[in-house]
Amino acid sequence: VSPVDYKASHLSATLPGLVNIAAFVPGLAKPGSRDFEKVMKASAAAGFSMVRIMPLGLENSLTDARALSTAHNNARKAAFCDYNFSVAATTTNAKQLTNLTSEVGSLFIPFNHFSGNFNKVAAVAAHFEVWPTNKPIVTDAKTSDLASILLLASLHSRNVHITSVTTKDDIKLIALSKAKGLQVTCDVAIYALFLSQEDYPHCTALPTKEDQAALWEHLDIIDCFSVGSLPYQVSVDVKGTGSPTLGIAEALPLLFTAVADKRLTLEDITKRLRDNPMEIFDLHEQPQCAVEANLDRSIRIEEEDCWSPFAGKVLKGSVERVVFEGETSCLDGVLIADGTVGKDMSSSGPRPAPTVKSPPIKPLV
Amino acid sequence: VSPVDYKASHLSATLPGLVNIAAFVPGLAKPGSRDFEKVMKASAAAGFSMVRIMPLGLENSLTDARALSTAHNNARKAAFCDYNFSVAATTTNAKQLTNLTSEVGSLFIPFNHFSGNFNKVAAVAAHFEVWPTNKPIVTDAKTSDLASILLLASLHSRNVHITSVTTKDDIKLIALSKAKGLQVTCDVAIYALFLSQEDYPHCTALPTKEDQAALWEHLDIIDCFSVGSLPYQVSVDVKGTGSPTLGIAEALPLLFTAVADKRLTLEDITKRLRDNPMEIFDLHEQPQCAVEANLDRSIRIEEEDCWSPFAGKVLKGSVERVVFEGETSCLDGVLIADGTVGKDMSSSGPRPAPTVKSPPIKPLV
Ligand SMILES: [Zn+2]
Ligand SMILES: [Zn+2]
Ligand SMILES: [Zn+2]
Ligand SMILES: [Zn+2]
Ligand SMILES: [Zn+2]
Ligand SMILES: [Zn+2]
Ligand SMILES: [Zn+2]
Ligand SMILES: [Zn+2]
Repeated sequence: VSPVDYKASHLSATLPGLVNIAAFVPGLAKPGSRDFEKVMKASAAAGFSMVRIMPLGLENSLTDARALSTAHNNARKAAFCDYNFSVAATTTNAKQLTNLTSEVGSLFIPFNHFSGNFNKVAAVAAHFEVWPTNKPIVTDAKTSDLASILLLASLHSRNVHITSVTTKDDIKLIALSKAKGLQVTCDVAIYALFLSQEDYPHCTALPTKEDQAALWEHLDIIDCFSVGSLPYQVSVDVKGTGSPTLGIAEALPLLFTAVADKRLTLEDITKRLRDNPMEIFDLHEQPQCAVEANLDRSIRIEEEDCWSPFAGKVLKGSVERVVFEGETSCLDGVLIADGTVGKDMSSSGPRPAPTVKSPPIKPLV
Repeated sequence: VSPVDYKASHLSATLPGLVNIAAFVPGLAKPGSRDFEKVMKASAAAGFSMVRIMPLGLENSLTDARALSTAHNNARKAAFCDYNFSVAATTTNAKQLTNLTSEVGSLFIPFNHFSGNFNKVAAVAAHFEVWPTNKPIVTDAKTSDLASILLLASLHSRNVHITSVTTKDDIKLIALSKAKGLQVTCDVAIYALFLSQEDYPHCTALPTKEDQAALWEHLDIIDCFSVGSLPYQVSVDVKGTGSPTLGIAEALPLLFTAVADKRLTLEDITKRLRDNPMEIFDLHEQPQCAVEANLDRSIRIEEEDCWSPFAGKVLKGSVERVVFEGETSCLDGVLIADGTVGKDMSSSGPRPAPTVKSPPIKPLV
């Protein structure tokens, strides 16, 4: 195992281990589902060393202790890197969730998910009343729901993270709110930066071309990049069935292509996939994790088992090696790590000391 | 003319001239409509010395200079007391309205009116950008629209008035916003305090019984009482046709009945129908105006020409005399004033000096 890249003459880059801040696991709370394993494998292979699991499944969400227990069962032996769980708000579970705060990373208030959405401000207010201020509140609220959430955050003097922003109006409202001192952060799904309704007029979850341009214009306002459930939604809209892993492997190649096109810098990427996520979601350091990329290598996305909107397209830049806790966990797309290397980081507090498996190596970043 | 009530042994009260802060005139911008005259007559007779005309008609609203000009034409010789006009926001007229600011009392952003409603936060933001801060913004926004408006008001550090609050959730959100220092004021329609969906299950514009209880509980949060378009809505829902004057004559008798029932004090009424409206809407003083009431007289609302939800009910307290600019303008329900006594106060600035028509008398309040 060598962190040194010895192949000749190509532009390489070493990034820190990255954070998948919003991994969508359709069968999350469904007993026996292997979706968690699939998503973790894909994430670990793609360069993510930490995965924040969205608490929203396709039909069932993590709205109580029982569902959370099912999710933990599904996660057994599937820790291909570190991860944590969160809980989902419903109109009635504000009080009950307070028993679970120490066991989860954050609270998600859904407005635009496949199921379980809010439609009343008053019910949201109940969560702001009782959810502890030291744990993030995340929401996918849009338009006037977004405004409601921002107002409540402002009234309660607390931070809130808006996930998967897709429209010009919303990014502008967030920009204005930030300018006025509101404690709001946000992410944009990587798919939303590279796909629009111009590509798939049927997919209203995608930004319009004009919305997409506004997202790029407000890059300074975008704290994180995410995978989220947008790729799944696109696969449902286009192919009729959703793919749980779509969008994960493409995440970095898409961003690297934007670097080649001078639309992004590598620093833009690490800031939004490591530094800001760590700060916003209070995540642990992972100094022994890294991603080695070949920025010169053009790759062609192949449609193998799964359809991809980028199939047949050429992207510039690929992940060559992923290092997790000092060990190569993935090499040229082949996952080496098994499902025991990662840790469940759902409980708050510092990361448990790692079980030493190999001689320590120098930090890579 | 004597301000002294010489009839024997009943509880009388002299109130200052009151403000009808939201008079709904269905045919407002319809050429040749006499609705304005009807509403002004009813208001002057009921004890109002100043009428703020809502800029929203049934089909046409005051959204541009042309409509405003029609409204002024309809107002000719119908100034039975003072009045002013306002303008209504549309999703596209933010810039154009800035030419009219000096000619109107306020801007109304409709969300729950008969027509012309907003459904996008972004379009509202445009009005907050350009409408001058020294003129009030009024809105009938509810639930998440209300939250959007409050957020925008907060982000732009400006005041906003919420008219016709009807629900528990909304009054609580306003209470919370006030507690956190937002510059928000509100009114509740008098009908909403005395009628509920328990009386008319079909009228969803009315509060539920629970909502109504919450409104009474939050009396401290309610800055003004209004007539508004709620009576018209109720008459549409119950009788199929709307009455432009419904709710005006009953306003004070309903409130006096609440005084008799010890649910309100006379000070609660004058604060919400004179003092607060003057301050919130920057209205002129009217020291020579007054309302003399007999608080002991039980009156029975008669269904004459027009249906009323209170027809056949007995209310305690009635207006005996209205004094406008030092002259008796209404005596025992008979309007004496003609349509030239009042002034169009739509333009900003102090009230024009009155034309002296009779020897000045001592201020009544
Ligand atoms: Zn676990
Ligand atoms: Zn609160
Ligand atoms: Zn910007
Ligand atoms: Zn290389
Ligand atoms: Zn005029
Ligand atoms: Zn602004
Ligand atoms: Zn209160
Ligand atoms: Zn009397």
